[in-house]
Amino acid sequence: MDFSAVSTCILPTTSLERDPQQFWGNLTLEQRQEWLHQLRTLYYQIILLYFRDAPDVHERIAQFTYIAYMLNLPISEVLGMHMHFMDEIIKQLKLEGRSEEVVLDYRLTLIDVIAHLCERYRRAMVEVTRETP
Amino acid sequence: MDFSAVSTCILPTTSLERDPQQFWGNLTLEQRQEWLHQLRTLYYQIILLYFRDAPDVHERIAQFTYIAYMLNLPISEVLGMHMHFMDEIIKQLKLEGRSEEVVLDYRLTLIDVIAHLCERYRRAMVEVTRETP
Repeated sequence: MDFSAVSTCILPTTSLERDPQQFWGNLTLEQRQEWLHQLRTLYYQIILLYFRDAPDVHERIAQFTYIAYMLNLPISEVLGMHMHFMDEIIKQLKLEGRSEEVVLDYRLTLIDVIAHLCERYRRAMVEVTRETP
Repeated sequence: MDFSAVSTCILPTTSLERDPQQFWGNLTLEQRQEWLHQLRTLYYQIILLYFRDAPDVHERIAQFTYIAYMLNLPISEVLGMHMHFMDEIIKQLKLEGRSEEVVLDYRLTLIDVIAHLCERYRRAMVEVTRETP
């Protein structure tokens, strides 16, 4: 496991940039579906690229966590997204008569994504603490 | 995977309770060692209890993430702690001639812990946003 990028990832947002009107709890069902579509597309790309040493993967993780952070997305939505893809992959592997073990490896992908998201919140929080008198 | 507790976990802290003087970056090496000892003890208990359906495990996860949050602990420290324990467990399993596969299951424990930690930051951040004019 190499998560060294977690601590060095560039985090372009500050906490005060967020618009509570755009928070998950304030969105319509339609808006949520639109964002979920975009987030699922990104997460699927992350999964596909993760074990291919693709340099793009860090950029996609940064994009995914940026959107999740701006939307104040509950972490359970990220976990649900991961489980949904794993179910799909397991179905496909079964159809092809292949081992499902690869799904265990993708847990590393999820760890990496939520560690980045958590680090984004942590740093944003420090900024707020500094800016709040 | 059942991470349903992530969204319902009781989060007793508010962001404004944190004391920046107690943040990880401001602690002496000795203070860090003391906290690491406490956090490692808790994390080890979480690992031991995680697949035993022990009701205590959620309480330990809440304690662990509370301390990590109050200390503003970098997420890389949590990942490092996990990897350290996994190395120890692998060594022990090798000595006993047993399969190392169990270590893959413990990735779920790490996912659960950092998902809770991330959710704690996310909720605290919303509180700050509300309290900041």
